[in-house]
Amino acid sequence: MKRLAILGSTGSIGTNTMQVVAAHPDCFQVMALAAGSNLDVLEAQVRRHAPRFVSVATEASARELRRRLGRTSTEVGWGLTGVLQAASDTGAHLVVSAMGGGGALLPTMAAIAAGKDVALANKESLVMAGHLVIAEAKRRDVRIVPVDSEHSAIFQCLVGRGAGLAHRIVLTASGGPFRTRPQATFASITPEEALRHPNWTMGKKVTIDSATLMNKGLEVIEAHWLFGLRVEQVDVVIHPQSIVHSLVEFVDGSMLAQLSVPDMRVAIQYALTYPQRRPSAVARLALEGIGALTFEAVDREKFPCLDLAYEAAQAGGSSPTILNAANEVAVAKFLDRRIGFDEIPTLIRKALDSHPGGPVSTVEEVLEVDREVRRRLEEH
Amino acid sequence: MKRLAILGSTGSIGTNTMQVVAAHPDCFQVMALAAGSNLDVLEAQVRRHAPRFVSVATEASARELRRRLGRTSTEVGWGLTGVLQAASDTGAHLVVSAMGGGGALLPTMAAIAAGKDVALANKESLVMAGHLVIAEAKRRDVRIVPVDSEHSAIFQCLVGRGAGLAHRIVLTASGGPFRTRPQATFASITPEEALRHPNWTMGKKVTIDSATLMNKGLEVIEAHWLFGLRVEQVDVVIHPQSIVHSLVEFVDGSMLAQLSVPDMRVAIQYALTYPQRRPSAVARLALEGIGALTFEAVDREKFPCLDLAYEAAQAGGSSPTILNAANEVAVAKFLDRRIGFDEIPTLIRKALDSHPGGPVSTVEEVLEVDREVRRRLEEH
Repeated sequence: MKRLAILGSTGSIGTNTMQVVAAHPDCFQVMALAAGSNLDVLEAQVRRHAPRFVSVATEASARELRRRLGRTSTEVGWGLTGVLQAASDTGAHLVVSAMGGGGALLPTMAAIAAGKDVALANKESLVMAGHLVIAEAKRRDVRIVPVDSEHSAIFQCLVGRGAGLAHRIVLTASGGPFRTRPQATFASITPEEALRHPNWTMGKKVTIDSATLMNKGLEVIEAHWLFGLRVEQVDVVIHPQSIVHSLVEFVDGSMLAQLSVPDMRVAIQYALTYPQRRPSAVARLALEGIGALTFEAVDREKFPCLDLAYEAAQAGGSSPTILNAANEVAVAKFLDRRIGFDEIPTLIRKALDSHPGGPVSTVEEVLEVDREVRRRLEEH
Repeated sequence: MKRLAILGSTGSIGTNTMQVVAAHPDCFQVMALAAGSNLDVLEAQVRRHAPRFVSVATEASARELRRRLGRTSTEVGWGLTGVLQAASDTGAHLVVSAMGGGGALLPTMAAIAAGKDVALANKESLVMAGHLVIAEAKRRDVRIVPVDSEHSAIFQCLVGRGAGLAHRIVLTASGGPFRTRPQATFASITPEEALRHPNWTMGKKVTIDSATLMNKGLEVIEAHWLFGLRVEQVDVVIHPQSIVHSLVEFVDGSMLAQLSVPDMRVAIQYALTYPQRRPSAVARLALEGIGALTFEAVDREKFPCLDLAYEAAQAGGSSPTILNAANEVAVAKFLDRRIGFDEIPTLIRKALDSHPGGPVSTVEEVLEVDREVRRRLEEH
């Protein structure tokens, strides 16, 4: 019986995680949940899984949830203190870090510092503070298992070998909704168009990131940290069918690839059951029925966000934090119709050029850079 | 420095093995070679690698080779005694079993009995006596690493996990030269047509087996033994591009696949260097340039040899030996234009029906069944 704490339990990855947990009642026990303000979903999760502890965003939400739960024994907390308690102090073996954004960084670090294994779905933890997260995980001998389908694919291909035999890894990208759209029309892309992802249903921010390919850029940075590979050992290839979730090329030219239907529960369940595997309700991949699998190079002029991410990854230090913060602000502005789709990379470029990157040695410094970049960009 | 004995060094797999060995002089030392009667190639191999011992088919060939080698220090043997000595008594760590046919069975068993790891390219060892070979390997704690590209692919996908987590394995088949040819025209297929394989250059027997899909049937039987899976856990899918060399489907629906250019040196080198990998001169797979990867179901009416193999595998005992012997006789008759291409499965069907399958508990019994089946079929 593996004891779990799930941070971000009402989000896209969180609700899929709860489905996987519910499908294997003999495998998992939910010790703690943390969420924002979606109390309807959270209340149902608490009633079903009876965790010891649950945390919400605000004191008002905590009061409301307590009222709703009535006489159940679940303790309710809130805010940063609450989520840190959920991450580190509720008897979990494995913490699922599935909150979106930089807010997951402190709870992820707290889980690692408390010696908990981490199933990592949050991108920002590694993008903003990869060197700190990985160093702490090594120090505490804690295992980080990726939940993202691409990184899970690489992790599965590398199990039992170690990344030392890898020549490079190749992250696959669907190419998003604008793969075949002429670049000349990018200025007229609406938020509605950008939110229509061909293969995956995800939150708004990550769906826009998929349309700009910044999503893949952030994954390059994550993979670099997660697998201890040089940035230039991480490649990206377009694979519109989203069946091959990523590949490893070994030094001898042999490649391993992981394939499955595009359902995030495959990678989530693997992260929860690792090093074991368990039967799953997810559809099997019928090779005879999938048609053709194709691969093509990324059009890097059309999708400049990818090269911006490589540039920030190469620069290291605070540069990926600047990239990430600028991207979040740009995506929010695009969704608010304050800038065009084609201005997203322009704004990030400006941020990288105007903020001096440099070494960062604590999570607090990282978060300070993050705040500073956002503050300056929001001013404009 | 890994010490090698290579049995069948002048054949298709043998010469490719010698190329891999020559490309890594710091990794491998050749202790022994065994071959048939291709003295030109063998002499060059002996001069280049200076093995302690070399064995040829006949006493006459041995005399001739000794004469050619002059004052080199390599000892020359011949016949079954010679190949058994090469397999078991020359200080090798790893024996590459790359002789074709049932003649490899005794040397393979001798290598295992002597505690040598085996890089297994010979199909018949596992097809005819899988239960005996695997039992002996377990008893001697000897590792069998497959050299066939399909089994190497599965082996690579399973490293570090164990076959217990596999739901099934899927062997890919190019489909051979007659994948799209109408079945009604199969009676008119000539040996020349059948010897034109679209993706691989191999010996005649295995090329015909690829055209009938018996090759894949034999591989199903091998995989069943090699990975300890039930016969019905081994599937076959047509993949005309020969890029994905096989796949494993795990219990959770996730699949791993191994990909590379269709060059047998990839799998050979992996078997020689396992558990390590070494850089290779083989061309890298450029995903962006491979076009579409496609998969389709086998047409089992058109290629009845595959179901004959499944049937023999399910029956077990001596049935796979009967299947294999009948197939060899049928292929030879087809190459001699004594039967049509479409009569190959007919002849095998008759052999399976007219010979009583049953348990076999020694290699000698297996070889006796083999001889008996051949004798009876040759009479007709």
